[in-house]
Amino acid sequence: MSVGVAVLGSTGSIGRSTLQVLARQRERFRVVALTGHSNSDLLAAQAKEWKPAFVGLVNGVTGDGGRGKGTSCLVEAATHPDVRIVVNGIVGAAGLEATLAALHAGKRVALANKETLVMAGELVAQAARAGSGEIVPVDSEHSAVLQCVAGRRPTELARLILTASGGPFRTWAPERVSRATVAEALKHPTWTMGKKITVDSATLVNKALEVIEAHFLFDVDYAHVDVVIHPQSVIHGFAEFVDGSVLAQVGFPTMELPILYALTYPDRVPDQGVRRFDPVAAGTLTFEPLQPDRFPAYLVGREAARLGGTAPARFNAANEVAVQLFLEERIAFGRIAEIIERVLGAGSREPGAGASLEDVLAADAEARRLAQEAAC
Amino acid sequence: MSVGVAVLGSTGSIGRSTLQVLARQRERFRVVALTGHSNSDLLAAQAKEWKPAFVGLVNGVTGDGGRGKGTSCLVEAATHPDVRIVVNGIVGAAGLEATLAALHAGKRVALANKETLVMAGELVAQAARAGSGEIVPVDSEHSAVLQCVAGRRPTELARLILTASGGPFRTWAPERVSRATVAEALKHPTWTMGKKITVDSATLVNKALEVIEAHFLFDVDYAHVDVVIHPQSVIHGFAEFVDGSVLAQVGFPTMELPILYALTYPDRVPDQGVRRFDPVAAGTLTFEPLQPDRFPAYLVGREAARLGGTAPARFNAANEVAVQLFLEERIAFGRIAEIIERVLGAGSREPGAGASLEDVLAADAEARRLAQEAAC
Repeated sequence: MSVGVAVLGSTGSIGRSTLQVLARQRERFRVVALTGHSNSDLLAAQAKEWKPAFVGLVNGVTGDGGRGKGTSCLVEAATHPDVRIVVNGIVGAAGLEATLAALHAGKRVALANKETLVMAGELVAQAARAGSGEIVPVDSEHSAVLQCVAGRRPTELARLILTASGGPFRTWAPERVSRATVAEALKHPTWTMGKKITVDSATLVNKALEVIEAHFLFDVDYAHVDVVIHPQSVIHGFAEFVDGSVLAQVGFPTMELPILYALTYPDRVPDQGVRRFDPVAAGTLTFEPLQPDRFPAYLVGREAARLGGTAPARFNAANEVAVQLFLEERIAFGRIAEIIERVLGAGSREPGAGASLEDVLAADAEARRLAQEAAC
Repeated sequence: MSVGVAVLGSTGSIGRSTLQVLARQRERFRVVALTGHSNSDLLAAQAKEWKPAFVGLVNGVTGDGGRGKGTSCLVEAATHPDVRIVVNGIVGAAGLEATLAALHAGKRVALANKETLVMAGELVAQAARAGSGEIVPVDSEHSAVLQCVAGRRPTELARLILTASGGPFRTWAPERVSRATVAEALKHPTWTMGKKITVDSATLVNKALEVIEAHFLFDVDYAHVDVVIHPQSVIHGFAEFVDGSVLAQVGFPTMELPILYALTYPDRVPDQGVRRFDPVAAGTLTFEPLQPDRFPAYLVGREAARLGGTAPARFNAANEVAVQLFLEERIAFGRIAEIIERVLGAGSREPGAGASLEDVLAADAEARRLAQEAAC
């Protein structure tokens, strides 16, 4: 009997990669639900191929076979009774509600939507415990760490080292970075991804989000989550254990492998879809310390992590607004970090660890408003 | 209650490292038995510090507290009733009998003595099954692989890639290598080890032995055991899984970590003894294909592996003789490979997979005789 899968954000980069993986694993998985944001033509084509029980379009009119509409369709897809695994490939805060609902319904959430954990890591952990659901990361860095620690006791883990390519501006002078164009920011050296995450990889906000995500996924103190610049993106993450030994997951960059692993975890299944690793072809691997003056937004993110409470949600919301304004060419690249920093400093610091979903959503909304104001 | 440990070869490189590890882990382990080859002063000092129940000197008169003598003391130490784990740090074929006896007695054998598996991999596997003992590798490459596959189903493993530093002659012209001196062969670029294994690392016989060892330890076809030259010795081994994902174990070279892991496997315990890994300090990591014309003895070893039966035992025995003759400056470096190849071609190819211990020991003895003859 095949396992039912819902793909949230099926027309986006993660969603399309997920369907490519599923096309090679039709005996093990079937698509029960698909949701797209606004690309109704592609969604209709996907629905025609996969014949899911549920199709939802968040922002527009559904194509053939479509029934859901608006963000509520995400929750409907995520909690569909025939769904066992929800691949959450939604970009940004919009994916939170579906993650919480899926976890309460006892599903596995294969999570590419890192904002979910950044905004509401505590709430997500609570939802997983309450509903016996589970979060399995799809982010390549967190999948790497999970592969290194799978089956081991949490107390054996001492430190995580996430790798960062450094993005397109790794070697640029800071003053040149602040004037970078949209086209320059979207030219990622090693990964092909959606626009928002590509800009986040240029500011290294993405790495700050991943540090917060790792903290919640692996229950590791922030003091034990390090980042190293590794321009080749061949080693995706390191896990250091209490005896001093370090494991790493390596491979040519592809999202298909983390997606497949999130579907089959803790097992692995034969798959011929990814380029076979060859250390000689991988070439020379280098590592550099992260230069904070080149990536001020990353430091703001680590400060948000340190503050805790709703600070990560405000950091994330301000960043979403700032990146959107940058993509619309309404602000300069360098203003992304300035806006986030301003919002983080302006917002209320309360409440702390016990933030409710209402608190998180209120902080998110306030931060978006403040970010818009700061941009004027 | 602490776990009783026997250290065979306690005065050698692995033995001394083992005692350094145990000195940091006195609450978990106690030394029940020590055996040394001929360094009676050091053995006496170790016995004074550790107060083991049994002390044996293979080749000479024991010091304070010594009781065992001759090779039979190895078996006595390995099967001592208070011993739970036998660290076998014996160099060469002499370690085989103790390994078999320990496995039959239900002990864990932490195996640095790779010749044991090369000579008699099938017999060792049978002994482990019959006596419910187990082999846990101490070799850094095999420890790396074990750390990557621990807890996973054997069917998920697709391929191993062992790394090789390439030794001191990695960049030398083949004709210069054939005339290398003992001092040059003992100048290993990344590892400090005993003399025999250091010469084996210069010929890359060591890597051929490790390929055979990996085949028996992880039940992987030789076609799926690859070797790559990695001069920095930071990545110790790769394990590729059926889904295409690859894990690796990384760290600055030290034998203490594989020794500790073999003692605590499958768990890990806190230990501050090894230099903490830092990818930036590790510097640039490179990988090169193995150049067979520079390492002819490696190819002979792979041929011995392909032949199976007693061929690996003959390969190992001929190599032990040839290396000893080289260390005594009685033959040139280049003759090591010639002698091994001559012996492998001359010896009987029967029996095959079902070789008994007598067959193995006979093949070993014949190969030693042929190697001595070939050297004249």
